[in-house]
Amino acid sequence: MDKMKFGVLGGGSWATAIVKMLTENQDKVAWYMRNSDAVAYIKKEKHNPNYLTAVEFRTEQLSLTDNINEVIQSTDVLIFAIPSAFLEAELQKLTTSIHDKIIFSAIKGIVPETGLIVGEHFHEIYKIPFKNIGVITGPCHAEEVALERLSYLTIASADEEKAKLVANNLSSHYIKTKISDDIIGTEYAAMLKNIYALAAGIYHGLGYGDNFQSVLMSNAIREMKRYIKRVHKMKRNINNSAYLGDLLVTGYSTFSRNRMFGNMIGKGYAVKSAQMEMKMVAEGFYAAKTAFEQKSKFSKKVETPIIDAVYKVLYDRENAKRVFKELTDKLD
Amino acid sequence: MDKMKFGVLGGGSWATAIVKMLTENQDKVAWYMRNSDAVAYIKKEKHNPNYLTAVEFRTEQLSLTDNINEVIQSTDVLIFAIPSAFLEAELQKLTTSIHDKIIFSAIKGIVPETGLIVGEHFHEIYKIPFKNIGVITGPCHAEEVALERLSYLTIASADEEKAKLVANNLSSHYIKTKISDDIIGTEYAAMLKNIYALAAGIYHGLGYGDNFQSVLMSNAIREMKRYIKRVHKMKRNINNSAYLGDLLVTGYSTFSRNRMFGNMIGKGYAVKSAQMEMKMVAEGFYAAKTAFEQKSKFSKKVETPIIDAVYKVLYDRENAKRVFKELTDKLD
Repeated sequence: MDKMKFGVLGGGSWATAIVKMLTENQDKVAWYMRNSDAVAYIKKEKHNPNYLTAVEFRTEQLSLTDNINEVIQSTDVLIFAIPSAFLEAELQKLTTSIHDKIIFSAIKGIVPETGLIVGEHFHEIYKIPFKNIGVITGPCHAEEVALERLSYLTIASADEEKAKLVANNLSSHYIKTKISDDIIGTEYAAMLKNIYALAAGIYHGLGYGDNFQSVLMSNAIREMKRYIKRVHKMKRNINNSAYLGDLLVTGYSTFSRNRMFGNMIGKGYAVKSAQMEMKMVAEGFYAAKTAFEQKSKFSKKVETPIIDAVYKVLYDRENAKRVFKELTDKLD
Repeated sequence: MDKMKFGVLGGGSWATAIVKMLTENQDKVAWYMRNSDAVAYIKKEKHNPNYLTAVEFRTEQLSLTDNINEVIQSTDVLIFAIPSAFLEAELQKLTTSIHDKIIFSAIKGIVPETGLIVGEHFHEIYKIPFKNIGVITGPCHAEEVALERLSYLTIASADEEKAKLVANNLSSHYIKTKISDDIIGTEYAAMLKNIYALAAGIYHGLGYGDNFQSVLMSNAIREMKRYIKRVHKMKRNINNSAYLGDLLVTGYSTFSRNRMFGNMIGKGYAVKSAQMEMKMVAEGFYAAKTAFEQKSKFSKKVETPIIDAVYKVLYDRENAKRVFKELTDKLD
């Protein structure tokens, strides 16, 4: 698998960070983004006009295009870093088959059209075999990749060789990688952590402090463990960086969109107003719905007081102050 | 045990916070501090001149004294909140027996004279039976107690009734309590977390970012679990707030003395200079020595790369930049 060609799909900060990582190892990286102005800009100015603007590319290393089919035709490994809310719209543009591609998801969320995590979506809807699917997960803020600050990624796939292939191509002096076979668990962790970051934001907005935040995170990781166990039971250490680390980097980040969105709810904004204020998509908003609805389908019950509280506030429009005060009695 | 009288020993911020919590439930609280000026000041001005100055006491609720024997004679439950480095010097003042007292430690650290955690120190040196010993542990910054921000405490004792007694007397609308029988594990967690906070400070001082911090905490909790298992094997969920929560509230706090001390080391201060700059005691400094030396006595080996690195820097005076870069290869 030495001469595999890599393509990255997406124009946001995480896509930009992944392209940067790949260019440390690959002579050429194909890069699709829908915004043709941005494509033209990068070709000329050598950096993304909208995200991680400090990252300078050697443009001879990039095959930039605003045509998704071009990237798919010219590459073997596709790394999707498109917000899950827009993924299906992008996939509708395909005129080329992706069936024989290796597909890695760097997306942390739920595809709203199907309520599936991204790996499952590709498997169920596009019939990609699980051995050709993988997940790239943090803890990793793209902004710190731009600064070349040491970060650790977990690359999960049912096929160890493919996990290694992608891991090797993302590694560099500032990126350490670890492989995992827990493709379902790591992707669920990446999705669920956004709900917990949103909850942390709500509490922050309501005026709760650092002591409580640590109790919330301690309860969140236990809840996450219970939830993922129901989805896919296997031996996993929930305190590994792909689970706990990813929860912490988001739950403690004051820049997280989910935390910011939650903070506005906590401060008293209506859900609609908070959504309008936010320019970026808060993945946790969709994740809360899916996680809540999905758990009713589990064969065994699972206690998820934090997810339940976030759902009640976002979808049943219950009073955040009351619901989150009641939640404090369920935590310990 | 309804009419038990409580005494608090210590004049710092944590002692002040505990007195505040007790006054929510007890008509009278005995309070010893060695600083007689502070005793006189509180009697007159109704607040501690040096710590949590915003906390106003009803002085008729306090039996304040600078004589440690007075508090011991007049109370049944002694709560020690004296920095571990000064504990033995205070205990040397005793002319009264503490043998029939219920003793709870709110001290997070090692008694330097014996290298023991506080509960073990009382047991070994003062022959207090374990059934009369307990531990009060966070996650809890005293400053947030002063602000009456919701905080959770874990009260551990081998004797459940005594744990409940103390828990009930600390509970209020801003304090939730949980009891535990893991007196050894909770106290070790409270001690070890200071070493990890110190390590977080060193990395911060060296310029590592948030992505890495979450990886460090993810590794720290796994290391803590391994370590405590060697000290006292029992069924415990290391992600409970007394362990993981306590680690997080300290490891993420920019006000933590341990993190500040580590930060100075990371910035290039010599250990001696950093100690001189710090006015407060960084418990992690002593804890690193004890934890490192103690593990050589364990019957089974335990991998503790973070503790080892902190020890090397603080006691072998090895180069922090190099040692902590090498450590990154051992984390995942």
